[in-house]
Parts: sequence; C-alpha cells; structure tokens
Amino acid sequence: MTRIGVIGAGYWGPNLIRNFAEMDEVELVAVADRDADRLAGVLKRYPSVRGESDGAAILADDSIEAVVIVTPAETHHAIAKRALEAGKHVLVEKPLTMKTDEARDLIALADQKKLVLMTGHTFEYNPAVRHLKKIVRSDDFGGIRYIYATRVNLGVFRAGINAMWNLAPHDLSIVFYLLEEEPIAVRALGQSFLKPGIEDVVFLYLEFPSGKIAHVHVSWLDPSKVRRVTVVGGKKMAIYDDLDSEQKLKIYDRGFDSVLFEEGGIRDYQVRLRGGDIHAPKIEGTEPLRVECAHFIECIRDGKTPLSDGRSGLRVVAGLEAAAESLANGGKRVLIP
Amino acid sequence: MTRIGVIGAGYWGPNLIRNFAEMDEVELVAVADRDADRLAGVLKRYPSVRGESDGAAILADDSIEAVVIVTPAETHHAIAKRALEAGKHVLVEKPLTMKTDEARDLIALADQKKLVLMTGHTFEYNPAVRHLKKIVRSDDFGGIRYIYATRVNLGVFRAGINAMWNLAPHDLSIVFYLLEEEPIAVRALGQSFLKPGIEDVVFLYLEFPSGKIAHVHVSWLDPSKVRRVTVVGGKKMAIYDDLDSEQKLKIYDRGFDSVLFEEGGIRDYQVRLRGGDIHAPKIEGTEPLRVECAHFIECIRDGKTPLSDGRSGLRVVAGLEAAAESLANGGKRVLIP
Amino acid sequence: MTRIGVIGAGYWGPNLIRNFAEMDEVELVAVADRDADRLAGVLKRYPSVRGESDGAAILADDSIEAVVIVTPAETHHAIAKRALEAGKHVLVEKPLTMKTDEARDLIALADQKKLVLMTGHTFEYNPAVRHLKKIVRSDDFGGIRYIYATRVNLGVFRAGINAMWNLAPHDLSIVFYLLEEEPIAVRALGQSFLKPGIEDVVFLYLEFPSGKIAHVHVSWLDPSKVRRVTVVGGKKMAIYDDLDSEQKLKIYDRGFDSVLFEEGGIRDYQVRLRGGDIHAPKIEGTEPLRVECAHFIECIRDGKTPLSDGRSGLRVVAGLEAAAESLANGGKRVLIP
Amino acid sequence: MTRIGVIGAGYWGPNLIRNFAEMDEVELVAVADRDADRLAGVLKRYPSVRGESDGAAILADDSIEAVVIVTPAETHHAIAKRALEAGKHVLVEKPLTMKTDEARDLIALADQKKLVLMTGHTFEYNPAVRHLKKIVRSDDFGGIRYIYATRVNLGVFRAGINAMWNLAPHDLSIVFYLLEEEPIAVRALGQSFLKPGIEDVVFLYLEFPSGKIAHVHVSWLDPSKVRRVTVVGGKKMAIYDDLDSEQKLKIYDRGFDSVLFEEGGIRDYQVRLRGGDIHAPKIEGTEPLRVECAHFIECIRDGKTPLSDGRSGLRVVAGLEAAAESLANGGKRVLIP
Repeated sequence: MTRIGVIGAGYWGPNLIRNFAEMDEVELVAVADRDADRLAGVLKRYPSVRGESDGAAILADDSIEAVVIVTPAETHHAIAKRALEAGKHVLVEKPLTMKTDEARDLIALADQKKLVLMTGHTFEYNPAVRHLKKIVRSDDFGGIRYIYATRVNLGVFRAGINAMWNLAPHDLSIVFYLLEEEPIAVRALGQSFLKPGIEDVVFLYLEFPSGKIAHVHVSWLDPSKVRRVTVVGGKKMAIYDDLDSEQKLKIYDRGFDSVLFEEGGIRDYQVRLRGGDIHAPKIEGTEPLRVECAHFIECIRDGKTPLSDGRSGLRVVAGLEAAAESLANGGKRVLIP
Repeated sequence: MTRIGVIGAGYWGPNLIRNFAEMDEVELVAVADRDADRLAGVLKRYPSVRGESDGAAILADDSIEAVVIVTPAETHHAIAKRALEAGKHVLVEKPLTMKTDEARDLIALADQKKLVLMTGHTFEYNPAVRHLKKIVRSDDFGGIRYIYATRVNLGVFRAGINAMWNLAPHDLSIVFYLLEEEPIAVRALGQSFLKPGIEDVVFLYLEFPSGKIAHVHVSWLDPSKVRRVTVVGGKKMAIYDDLDSEQKLKIYDRGFDSVLFEEGGIRDYQVRLRGGDIHAPKIEGTEPLRVECAHFIECIRDGKTPLSDGRSGLRVVAGLEAAAESLANGGKRVLIP
Repeated sequence: MTRIGVIGAGYWGPNLIRNFAEMDEVELVAVADRDADRLAGVLKRYPSVRGESDGAAILADDSIEAVVIVTPAETHHAIAKRALEAGKHVLVEKPLTMKTDEARDLIALADQKKLVLMTGHTFEYNPAVRHLKKIVRSDDFGGIRYIYATRVNLGVFRAGINAMWNLAPHDLSIVFYLLEEEPIAVRALGQSFLKPGIEDVVFLYLEFPSGKIAHVHVSWLDPSKVRRVTVVGGKKMAIYDDLDSEQKLKIYDRGFDSVLFEEGGIRDYQVRLRGGDIHAPKIEGTEPLRVECAHFIECIRDGKTPLSDGRSGLRVVAGLEAAAESLANGGKRVLIP
Repeated sequence: MTRIGVIGAGYWGPNLIRNFAEMDEVELVAVADRDADRLAGVLKRYPSVRGESDGAAILADDSIEAVVIVTPAETHHAIAKRALEAGKHVLVEKPLTMKTDEARDLIALADQKKLVLMTGHTFEYNPAVRHLKKIVRSDDFGGIRYIYATRVNLGVFRAGINAMWNLAPHDLSIVFYLLEEEPIAVRALGQSFLKPGIEDVVFLYLEFPSGKIAHVHVSWLDPSKVRRVTVVGGKKMAIYDDLDSEQKLKIYDRGFDSVLFEEGGIRDYQVRLRGGDIHAPKIEGTEPLRVECAHFIECIRDGKTPLSDGRSGLRVVAGLEAAAESLANGGKRVLIP
C-alpha cells in the first residue's frame, strides 16, 4: 500500500485523484488545494481523503511516501524540490519545470536521494502511441522521415502560460518518444491575438541530427478540435488521431518508389507513387493516465526508473526553452544544447 | 464567338479543353501538345478540334484571338510573351511565371497591347471561397486574425518543380484574395525526402502589415488528402474544407470575449471562451473552372480586367520567389518588396 | 437531503451511483448487489456508502425515502412493487417492466400511495433531444413526416433479453417524446444469429394515427457503432447523431416544394427539390443522466409528476410488447391497444 | 469496331454516351432523344455523332450492331423488344423491365436470336463491390449472416416511378450478386409523403432459403446522402461506403465467439464479443460504368453471356414486382416464385 498525497485539484488534478483513489495498491491520504470549493468537491466524492488548504501540510506528513504535483507549471520546481528534500517520490505534471536548470536541479536531487522523479507525459503511456511506436520503428516502415502534429481547439485561455507551454509538451514528448533522438535546433513562430505577450497560436519546427524534421502546430484559438500526429516513413505512413474513436491509428501502406532509369544516355531515378491498403489495428481502451499512475507506483515499489523520468522531462523543457527564445526573437533558429 | 487555342494537354489541360469546348460562345479551334498520345486522346473526344504538335502553330494562326497556356511553369513566360506579341489575349495557368521580373514583363506587355492577361487562380472563382470571403470580411466576423491552410496528399511527384511551386500558388492566391493585403515577409522551411533539391514538404509563414499571419503547409508526401483553410476572426471562425461534400464551408459562432475586471486594486482583462452554433451555408455546385473560363471570355468581350489579372499573378509569384529564397537559406525571414 | 438507495451495481448502475453520490441535495445511503466484487468496487470509490448483498435490506430501511432500480428488466416489476409498497419513491431503469399489465400495476400503486414513479428514459433528459424537439415541433419545420432511428454496434450480448428489449426502449422513448402521439400498430422483423430465440437484429416499423411512420433498426451484431435519429419534416429535416462530438444536431433547411402547374389542359403539381443551409446549434454538454437524477429528486421534493413517469414507461412497454408479438409471428401487423 | 447507338440522353444517358464515345474499339454512331435541347448538348460535345429525335431511326439503321437503352423504365420492354427483333445486341438500364413477364419475353427473344441482352447493373462492375464479394465469400469471413443497405438522399423526384423502382434495383443487384441466392419472400413498407401513390420512402425485408436476411432502406426524402452496404458474417464484418473516398471498403475482424460452458450441472454456451483490427484494402479507381461498357462490347465480340445478363435483370425485377405487391398490401409477406 503506497501512501499518496496530491497537490492541486484544478483542471487536471481530479483525473489523477480519481485514478489513485481507485487503485487497490494505493491509499490516497490527502489532497491539497487553496480553493475551498474545489477541495469540497473532491471530498464530497472521496470522504475518506483528508483535505488541506496548503500543500506544505502534505509535504510535512511523514506517513506520505509519494507526492503528485498538479499545480501551475511555474510552481513545479519549487514544490517538487521541497517534496524531494522531504524524502518523497514525485510525479510532476508536464512540463516538468519552466527552465532546464530547474529540471537538472530536480534530477540531481532525485538521483542523490535515490527517489523516483517522474514526469506526467501521459501520451507515452497511451496504448495508441505505444502501438504507433512499434510500427514506425519496425523495418517495414522504412525509417521515419518526418512527423507533424496538430493540437488545436477553442481552448481554455490561461493567463500565466502561453499555448506553447500549455499544449506543446504533449507533442514534444510524443515526437521524442517516437524518434529516440534529441533535436539540434528549433524555430518557433506565433502570435498573441487574445492578450499581448501570451501567444495563443504557435508553430514549431524542429531539426534532428539525422535530417528528420518535426512540425508542431498548437493553438487555443481554433474553431474545431484536432489532436493528430502524422508520421511519414520511407515505406509506410501513419496517422494517430486521438479523436477518432473507431480508428485511432491508421497505417497506410503507401509511399514512393525510386526507380533508376537510363534514357538517351542520361541516368536518373524516377519517383513513382505507390498506393496501398490502410490498416487500423485494434487499440486497447485502457485509460492512459491509469497506466501512468500504475507505472509510478510500480517504479516506487521496485526501485525502477520511470519511462518518462526526469531526463525525459528535461528533454521537453529544453525544447520548449529554446522554442521560447526563438519565439521571442521572431523565429530565429535556436540551437538546443 | 471567341476563337480559342489551348497549348498543353497534360495533367490539367484536359479540364480547360473540356470547359472551353462546351461553352456556347467559344469555338475551340486548336490544341497543341508535343505528346502524340495525349493529343490523340483529345482529338478522339473532340474530333472537330485541330491538333498541333507545336504551340507555335497556334500562335501563328491569326484567326485565333485567345490562347490558354497550360504548359510546365518554367515555360509560361516565354510562351505567354510570344502570345501577347502575336496580339492574343492570354490565360496562363498558375503560377503565372517563375520570377517576378517575368511577371512584370508580361503585365507591361499586356497593358501596352491592351490585351487581357489572366492568371488561372481557380480558387478565386470557387463558389465556396467567394462565399467565405463575404463572410470573413463582414463586420460580424470581427476582423480576420490569422489563416492557415493545409494542402497535402500523396501527390504526383514532379521532377521540374518542388511541392511549394506546385501546390502553394493555390493557397497564396486564396490568402491574398481573402486578406486584400500583401505580405511584408515570408519564411519557408522544408525538406527533400524523395529527390535531393526538390522539396516535397514545405511550411510557409507569412506576415502582413496589419499584424495578421498566414501559415501554409504543402506536401506531396502525406498519407491522406487534405484541402483545408481555417480563418480565425475576432468574433467568428470559419473552415473551408474542399473535400467535405456536405459542408464545404462551416462558420463557427465561437471565439473569446475580453472582459475588463478589477480585483484588489489591479485592473486586468480576463479572456473568456464563447461557444456557439455552427452554420454551413449552401454552396452552389458550379464548377469553379467553368466560372473562370467564362470570366476570361467575358473580359475579352467587354474589355474588362480579370479578377485574377496579371497583378494578382505577380503577387503570388512575388510570395513564392521570396519563399524560395527563404527555403534556400534555412528559413531566414525574407522581405517581400 | 433525500436519502437514496440503489439496487443493482452492474453495467449501468455505477453511472447512477456516481451521479447520486455527487449531488449536494442527496445522501446515497446504500447500494445493493449480489455480486461481491462489484459491490467492493463501488465501496472502494464511495467508502461512506453501505453495501448490501440483497436489495431487501434497502427496502427494509425506513430511513431511505427513494429507491433506484437498475436490475435486469425481468425483475423490475417485482422489486418496484415491493419498493412502492414499502412507501418509497421509485426510479426504474428502462424498460419499466416486461409487460403492460405489470406497468399498469405499478402506476396504480404509485397513484394510490401518492409516490413518485419514474422511468429512466435518459434520452428525454438529453439536451440534444430536447433541443431537437423544440425544432421539429416548431412551425418552421413544417410538421414531422417520418422518423428513423439506428442504434447498432458490436454490443454486449445479454442472455436474458433480446436486442429489441435491450436497445429499442431508447428509440421508442425518443420517438414518442418527439411525436407526442401513440402508435396504432407495429411490425417487427428480426433474426437470431448468435443464440436461438434471442434476436440480435431487429427492425421495427411503427404507424401513427396521423399517418406518420417510424422505423427503428437495432442490433448487437454490427461492425460499427451508430446512434442516429433522422427526422424528416414538411419544410426542414434534422439529424441527431449522438456520436458526433462537434455537431450532435444538424438542421437541414432542405426539402421539396410542390408547385401546381397546368399544361395542355392537365393540372398537376410538380415536386421540386429545395436545397439549403445546415445549422448545428450549440448543445449544452450537461450529462443527461445528471439531469434525469436531479429531476427525480426535484419531483420527490415538490410532489411533481416526472416527465418520464409511469405512463411514459407504459407507452414504451406497450410498443415493445406488441413488437414482441409481431416478431414471434413473422412480422405480422399487431395493433397497439 | 462495334457500331453503337444510344436511345435516351436524359439524366444517366450522358454517362453512357461519354464512355462509349471514348472507347477505342467502339464507334458511337447515333444518339436519340425527343428533347431537342438535350440532344444539342450531346452534339456540341460529340460533333461527329448523329442526332435523332426518335429511337426508331436508330433501330432502323442496319449499320448499327448494338443499342443502349437509357429511357424511362416503363419503356424498356417495348424498345428492347424492337431492338432485339431488329437483330441488335442490347444493353438496358436497370430495372430491365417493370414486369417479370416482360423480362422473360426479352430473355427468350435474345436466346432465340442469339443476341447479347445485358442489364445495366453498374454495381456488379464496381471494383469495391467485386472486392467485397471476394472477401465475404472467402472462408475467413465465416459465411454471410445478414446484409443491410441504405441508399437515401434528397433525390430527384420522378413522377412516373417510386423511390423503390428508382433506387432499390442497385441494392437488390448487389445483394443477389453477393449472396448468389434468390430470395423466397419479401416485405415492403413505405409512405408517399410528396405525392399520393408515389412512395418516396421504402423499407424492404428479404428472406433467403438459407435463413439469411437482407434489409434495404431507400428514400428520396433524406437530409443527407448515404450509400452504404453492411455485410455481417460469422467471423468478420464489412462495410462498403461508396461516399468514403479514402476507405470505400472496411473489413472488420470482429464478431462473437460461442463458448460452451458448464456450471452447476447446466450446460450452455456463452456468447463472447471479439474486437479486432480494421482493414481497408486499396480499391482501383476505375469507373464502374467504363468496366460495364467494355464488358458489353467484349460479350458482343466474343459471343459471351454478360455477368449481368437478362436472367440477372429478371431476378431484380422479380424481387421488385413482389415488393410492389407487398407495398400495395400494407407490407404483407409476398412469396417470390
């Protein structure tokens, strides 16, 4: 029985609370939130859970082994640091921090204290994304050429963070998970239509050492919800559409063949289109967040490193930090160290 | 009865041939193509049309008043120039030319000779695009904020031209038509996966003097066909999806409201989401190319300037020329004069 | 604070349990189920609720004012009867009973005891269905002509009940709710492919006194999930698609106009197609079951008759009973008394 | 070179004219239509074709070997009879005739004269339907259980024929083609909302000797166009959606397994759902009508019996004739001889 506390019961918090509350091997001891109404809502549903107006009370409770941090991104570093210092395993919502230095700080601390530090990159636990990875990394796929992702809708406007920091962590974590490669440079272009200084529409362009590219379009200002990732390979192509309930994943046996030909003494190769079947594999209906929560508990119990550990969190923060610099400088190419 | 000749019977040519052949006020006199098989196919369908292996024969025929040029883009300038010099009205497929100098040259020549010079920007004659313009420029729409267009599919690979020159003229002509504004700068990023030096995937980012932006994604290397333009306004939003047979145009009564509030002495405005109905106006089923062809004949007859005249063609060529420079220089911001 | 007990925690029960558990004006006192595992699952989530292995314990608890019955349909009558006899308000899942006599029995008992008897026709509380009704009954719609509904998918096979009794109550309740008219006759045709005697595919055809007709197709044996109701009116048409997250309701301004004409002494009217716009009104995202549960509590508190009362439940049972007779007799036309 | 004449240039005629005009091995000699405007439209497109105001002129032309009849269904028998008597091969649009006697008459005449008699069941030449047949008749599919087809839209209202005779021939020809079995009985229910006596909405229910069933829903009075056939088999399921440009055919590896079990002395079998992948095979883009026309010419040349011969046409007419009787008698079960 792992004793857990959750700090933050806002937009996403209730989903983590529900999952931990329903796990057999977990005791959800306490939930903290400054907003009394939100807290009351949680306690109405889970009367045996203790409510706290301040996360400090959870950090101070020695009976609690692990802490889940679902607060605004700007506070992640400070709270996670105190939790690790208090000897607790930590699951932090994405983005892990707002700065790479802060992420490195947490990683070092967790390493030193031998504690689990996990980033809530939910999509790495999504059965469709996991299946997609198996396909795009198989020989049949012919090698990934490029990826583009669209994550737009009429989203909730957040005052403290722009659409890139809010939405792109998902796509970067998916892209890095699929490519197993770190980008060398990023460009970001965007605009603030709703409130000066808070970009609501951002386009990211990432370059990888192997020549692969990734493009990410995120927006809060879109009429229609889109959650789609397209992966183009040398022999096949794939679309992951999270909103398609029947065919979340489609594998297209399509592409181009290059045929060498010689005509009138000139040798060249001709590029010929190759159509083909579409295959939509059955995807398990497991809730990704449930898999993520179970993985956190398993890592604590077995002393394992999470799939989406602090380094995975750092990678995404590094991409975003460089992108933020590019965004502030009119889209200039920023190298990622 | 306007006497017409068509030069080029390749991929797109037959559509123009069919439309002119079926118009009552037109006599399609001759079609020229170097490929004997293609020409035979046309003549089988239209036995009364004269076939020529060389466009020069059409230009030399004094009984022909107007020439339609549907040859590879690289040849547009030379053929159109000779046609204008021969005193013929000219309809040139998009892009008008490959260089702005060439486009200016044709414009000057047509002005001097008082001949009609029209660019085949079909989408400006598309009933859905025309309806879209009416909506996005009405007061109700609250002013266009940004536009993004996606034109991707597993396309026919063309050796002489990249995906940007092949596909983006459509989107640029739509964007300029809707905005009635010329871009000040463009950035283009892309990759050549199929054949070195021929980009098959390109992302364009355009800036306008008013602060509006447009993003265009074109690709020959995509599993699924997409032809979509999204326009985000201050009060409403719209999606034009050319592949949706039931709802080509959707107007979303959705957006954000900014509400000024004062709390604890701090005055700020809060951004609040506003959901709403979707309206899909009935769009006439008229073939856009038919409207375009009729407009060409009408301009010749009445001495009018076409909607998509040489200047309209030049605007698109200027955007593409600057984009090509950006593409060749790793996405650097290129000013458009 | 209304004190509530729920009997049945199977497939649908947990949804009712969750809704009542989260309502401020309700105290969910006890849940009964014979299956110990299911019960344990509920109690893990709601530790303050009392678990009972037998519904009788709930009926015997005088502190409980209202009982929610979510057991197999064959047991509805017996349990509801005992609950009413014990002086409790009752909400019964659909179908209210398996026989009209039983439904009449419950109605009489509830009337006599002045207790609330409500049928769980969830769709009558669905914001999309309520909006649909407003539209199809407005003058603009031109009068409903016919309705057809499709409710098919690869469904859970139930041993005790066929697909008609399992799925069609939803559609009949929607059809009767929209038409405000009771059918005079029904025909049902179907087949038992999976298990002899248990129809997995059924087609219903209902006739109404006004000449309107309704067709219902239900199936457990379908590759793809469909939940769609089409209403054709004299001037407009509507589609309610429960699986379309963006446009649950579409109103088509389309139909036919009859134009009288006279030619060569013959007077006749010509029927002319009229195309038009599509309108998708914004539908509130409220969970229909939440509205239903709140309505039950409100009826208890204020002594009101529920929208979907015993008579509403009876109407659906009468339709199903007649349809079952038709089904057993090869689709013969069965009058509904 | 087969010399062909086409009688009828109305709604569907131009498609047949176009296909025959473009075939190398065919000479389209003449087209007949009473409507001078329609005829002029055809001649504008195909100036080398002879126009006739009366089909008799085509029948009288001894140089014409084969005649294509695309006139209103009521006239099919009379014209086809005269064409066969004149020694010409005949392709008749569906339905072959309006009565089985008439169909038998044509079959006998063609047999006696050794002439090709073909029915224009286009869908039997549709690559998607042909692929579908291969799949549903393979062992993997587990045997067809039931088929249902929907062919509805806001259709052109035809005064002389109801929606069943207009639309259902397509579905019956598809169903019979897939099942290779003739129905024993049919029921038809429908309503005339637009014009008394002309049903605009019809539901057909067909029974086959093997226990299979088919349901067909046709309507001119529907907001949205649907062209869909669902085939449910013992091990797999398939959907053919003619309007889905990317996935015309979807094969679902889904179904139910029956598992025998014994519990407490009772032996029964349990029905368990089996989910699975979806496969959308690549379908050739060939125009079905082109395949049909080529097949007609090939049968004439080689003296072969067409796939959709007179007997195939008769089968559909027999189904429709029985259905019309059922429709006129309130849906009574009518045996098909």
